[in-house]
Amino acid sequence: MTGAALAPALARAGVTWRDDGQVILTGPALALADACDRAFLALAAPWGAVEERHPPFVAAAPLDRLDYFRSFPHLATFPVCLDDDDANLDAFTGTDPVRGDGTVGLTRTRPAREVLTPAACYQLYIHHAGARLDAPRYLTVRNTCFRREREYRPLRRQWAFQMREIVAIGARDEVRAFLDRTRAMVDALVAGLGLPAAWELATDPFFRPTENARYLLQRVSPTKHELVYDGLAIGSVNLHHDHFGATFDLERDGRPATSGCVAFGLERWLYALTDRFGADPAGWPDIEAAARAAAAEAA
Amino acid sequence: MTGAALAPALARAGVTWRDDGQVILTGPALALADACDRAFLALAAPWGAVEERHPPFVAAAPLDRLDYFRSFPHLATFPVCLDDDDANLDAFTGTDPVRGDGTVGLTRTRPAREVLTPAACYQLYIHHAGARLDAPRYLTVRNTCFRREREYRPLRRQWAFQMREIVAIGARDEVRAFLDRTRAMVDALVAGLGLPAAWELATDPFFRPTENARYLLQRVSPTKHELVYDGLAIGSVNLHHDHFGATFDLERDGRPATSGCVAFGLERWLYALTDRFGADPAGWPDIEAAARAAAAEAA
Repeated sequence: MTGAALAPALARAGVTWRDDGQVILTGPALALADACDRAFLALAAPWGAVEERHPPFVAAAPLDRLDYFRSFPHLATFPVCLDDDDANLDAFTGTDPVRGDGTVGLTRTRPAREVLTPAACYQLYIHHAGARLDAPRYLTVRNTCFRREREYRPLRRQWAFQMREIVAIGARDEVRAFLDRTRAMVDALVAGLGLPAAWELATDPFFRPTENARYLLQRVSPTKHELVYDGLAIGSVNLHHDHFGATFDLERDGRPATSGCVAFGLERWLYALTDRFGADPAGWPDIEAAARAAAAEAA
Repeated sequence: MTGAALAPALARAGVTWRDDGQVILTGPALALADACDRAFLALAAPWGAVEERHPPFVAAAPLDRLDYFRSFPHLATFPVCLDDDDANLDAFTGTDPVRGDGTVGLTRTRPAREVLTPAACYQLYIHHAGARLDAPRYLTVRNTCFRREREYRPLRRQWAFQMREIVAIGARDEVRAFLDRTRAMVDALVAGLGLPAAWELATDPFFRPTENARYLLQRVSPTKHELVYDGLAIGSVNLHHDHFGATFDLERDGRPATSGCVAFGLERWLYALTDRFGADPAGWPDIEAAARAAAAEAA
């Protein structure tokens, strides 16, 4: 079903599509979004993953050490405030702060030092920087993530969206085993749901990709697979090698740690489930039960 | 206990204080934060309040109709992105995107059209604009909220923080009754917890307050009371009269609707509870049970 046709039916289930490509959730749709998150937590449970909650801000400096801004300058959103001296604020309030076309007539702003996090897991590597691990560390985190795109479509491509991730930091074999087994759990989940989704080799959306060594590396040594439903990536499995481990001084038994993550886009799951099973909540599957069964099956 | 003394003990309970005045939560502290939110939902339950989940962005234009930017220009945070033409992105990536002092060397940015929401309830009035009510409408919403301040202190004054609100839109008497009874529930909650907190008359932190008619109105006709623990506002009760109703065309029985909200700052509750009951989770009260009892008592 196309998005335009889906909107009125979904509205009855509690999804309001805003003009800006974002959504408001209530009622059954909100309950389904929360059930999706609990389902992903059920896939994290076999790992004993420790949950963390992080602010939506991440300092620009550590992200820069990952070459994030050269790789993805087009995606980044910066939180910006007016310089708060009275003269500058007077200049802002003295004219129309918001113009007729809806844009803000910002006067002088303070230099940005933060970025609104583009993924949920960056903060984990930064927070655990310097760790000396004698066992693999499993973590899980959910956050609002921000990626500027050229166009937005509610539930499918939003400037702000919810991401749940399960992360492993450890030796290479430990992280590979984590990714393989978690991917098997996701396979069991979509099979149990009857959701037609398949894994596809993918690359990250680099700026000037063919000039970026990390993009070229992703092409010759695949590290990212996306779970695709009807052309839409609803999850991904990512092997970072020691990219984060070396940058943030994470060691496993004296060597730079490997890391990997499995990520889920919550609004996209809401889209896939309602597209597949319809907008009537009576037809929605119990995704939490399906995830628990999948975790047990892949154990 | 002072903040500096509290930090190491709280770290054992799962609160990490970031240098930028924000916190990372895990373990017992994360569980307590979630329990606080469920407690506030228990106070919303007697009203049959419908939960909504909104994005963190709010369009600047409708907020401007409330004169928000003239009243609070110093608090606003705008999400800003680079103009995404290749030449502009090349200019950004061609030098150091992040300078040695940690600030971002932004090149040309697109005009902002949104603001990161400074409170959780604004989006409700905007979303329900045009409503014609024949009964009061009770809603509840939680969101990450953003207020720039001159200095930050973890848990107590953060640029980004979590706010839970319970909102009523209806006739004046209905909203007054909602505020009175919900305030009584909060009184029963803090009494049940043994948390020494008291209501104080308050005003919003206007820019150039004495030149602002709305500030002067708040002074002569009190509309805001804050629940204060050791100098820190952990909740507030707010009567908006028909400020939102008239601006967003909300009507109750043919007349501009009155609105009011009861708001809770989740990190500040975490501060108050751990300051009062210590950093050892064994000493923490069951706030969810206390809230259910308070809701029953005030029924």
